[in-house]
Amino acid sequence: MSAPIYDRIALIGLGLIASSMFWAIKRAGLAGEVTGYARSEETRNTARRIGLCDRVCDSAVEAVEGADLVVLAVPVGAMGTVAREIAKALKPGATVTDVGSVKKHVIEVVGPELPKDVHFIPAHPLAGTEHSGPESGFAELFDNRWCLLVPVENCAPEPLARLRTLWERMGANVDEMDPEHHDLVLAVTSHAPHLIAYTMVGVADDLRRVTDSEVIKYSAAGFRDFTRIAASDPTMWRDVFLTNKEATLEILGRFTEELFALQRAIRIGDGQHLFDYFTRTRAIRRGIIEAGQDTDAPDFGRAKKAGT
Amino acid sequence: MSAPIYDRIALIGLGLIASSMFWAIKRAGLAGEVTGYARSEETRNTARRIGLCDRVCDSAVEAVEGADLVVLAVPVGAMGTVAREIAKALKPGATVTDVGSVKKHVIEVVGPELPKDVHFIPAHPLAGTEHSGPESGFAELFDNRWCLLVPVENCAPEPLARLRTLWERMGANVDEMDPEHHDLVLAVTSHAPHLIAYTMVGVADDLRRVTDSEVIKYSAAGFRDFTRIAASDPTMWRDVFLTNKEATLEILGRFTEELFALQRAIRIGDGQHLFDYFTRTRAIRRGIIEAGQDTDAPDFGRAKKAGT
Repeated sequence: MSAPIYDRIALIGLGLIASSMFWAIKRAGLAGEVTGYARSEETRNTARRIGLCDRVCDSAVEAVEGADLVVLAVPVGAMGTVAREIAKALKPGATVTDVGSVKKHVIEVVGPELPKDVHFIPAHPLAGTEHSGPESGFAELFDNRWCLLVPVENCAPEPLARLRTLWERMGANVDEMDPEHHDLVLAVTSHAPHLIAYTMVGVADDLRRVTDSEVIKYSAAGFRDFTRIAASDPTMWRDVFLTNKEATLEILGRFTEELFALQRAIRIGDGQHLFDYFTRTRAIRRGIIEAGQDTDAPDFGRAKKAGT
Repeated sequence: MSAPIYDRIALIGLGLIASSMFWAIKRAGLAGEVTGYARSEETRNTARRIGLCDRVCDSAVEAVEGADLVVLAVPVGAMGTVAREIAKALKPGATVTDVGSVKKHVIEVVGPELPKDVHFIPAHPLAGTEHSGPESGFAELFDNRWCLLVPVENCAPEPLARLRTLWERMGANVDEMDPEHHDLVLAVTSHAPHLIAYTMVGVADDLRRVTDSEVIKYSAAGFRDFTRIAASDPTMWRDVFLTNKEATLEILGRFTEELFALQRAIRIGDGQHLFDYFTRTRAIRRGIIEAGQDTDAPDFGRAKKAGT
């Protein structure tokens, strides 16, 4: 146990990220007390039952009272409303952060709601699973993952350094980025891939000549990886696409161009074009494995390698 | 050890599938002897070094001599050439099968090359990893995966039943399917998803404003799943797309339509459309997990769940 970084942390929203933060905070003793609030009574009851948060409150205002750090962990589309709700109850000098997947929009809607005497430091941990809700969290979620801090203009150095320390002690590597670049990078590494996976799964579901049971039975040939991504939380992802519209549409436009070029190569039988393209993409995978961001175990380790 | 199903099995091509077959055959004692051949001398030397095959031969003709079962495990584009090469050396009454990802094309090019006194039974095990080559195989690859047998007209029942038993004893579940339907089902569950993953990884690689190192560092947000699929063998996949052209292009056409509909929903801010779509696709994932075709562990089990 290290010394607490904050006396009191308030988690607003108790889904996968907030619940993982709670367990990671507890693992390393990073806060004196963690309060929590979720809009749904069912979620609050679940949290109380499983011991998620030291104190589960029945209002966001109660949860943030006296907190040194307030974490907005709700869908991006709800950030503005929640900020407005808690604004007057915030302790002067407190830090407000968020964990939303889109940063320009969150800054636009949350920033103006907050009083001048709190520090607003947007953040985005690049970690998650296809599961959601208060029971899906676990302390290791952020270990060796990146958390991007997106400080707004004139951000005070001490609160920024303290938030960075919190994320590092929760296991993450921390980088800083400006909001515009963040939203473009995430459109490439996350938002466009998610929309594409949702689309492919939707196509399979639509295809009446291939029954659901065939699509499911024979999914190990590649499709099942897409279904994991397409099982992610619908509310969260609706909000991501609606609020990172420009960057996502730009990347999807480039994707479509490239896809058409490959379709054309298939149609005219240009094997060299396909071979060269597929060879180039292999290198990126190697880079990800060398950077420690994925396992080299075949099939993500789903297939157990035999002693031969 | 059960009784051998074949006295001698010849594996032509010694990549991921053939090498996994060898270890699965040995695990269950399914053949008296397994011979092997690969076109590349380097592959043959590797096979000899790691004990892959009881006997590694320097020509395909030598490997198939006296074999009761010959398995063509080369890229789909090479199947016809290999069939022509071995045709005269095949033992009368032998069974010839293949493991290609496309069936109509293989039947068209292999069938006419074979003598009338051998049984040709096309097959396709729906199993694989992103790794390739003689050292990538392991005995468990086919456990609880599907193998599709695609018998041609007037297929004799005894050889078919025997090949089915081989696949079952290698751990697979076996179904039969006609070639046309096979190629469409695989276009949905495998071929289109692979092309889409290759495309998305190519787009990320192209994007100059987002550096390669950013794409790699921040890949855990979704993109890294695509890179695994896009690390698959370029030759194999070039051949798949060139030989299952019609079905792949049809599925890609439907994919593009759906993608455009979702892009439009993003552009006009139709959150309900997005939410409904993303909710529907979640159900398919549940089906795959219930069918035992994937793990429910978060993130394929890459993230280790903590005792909380």
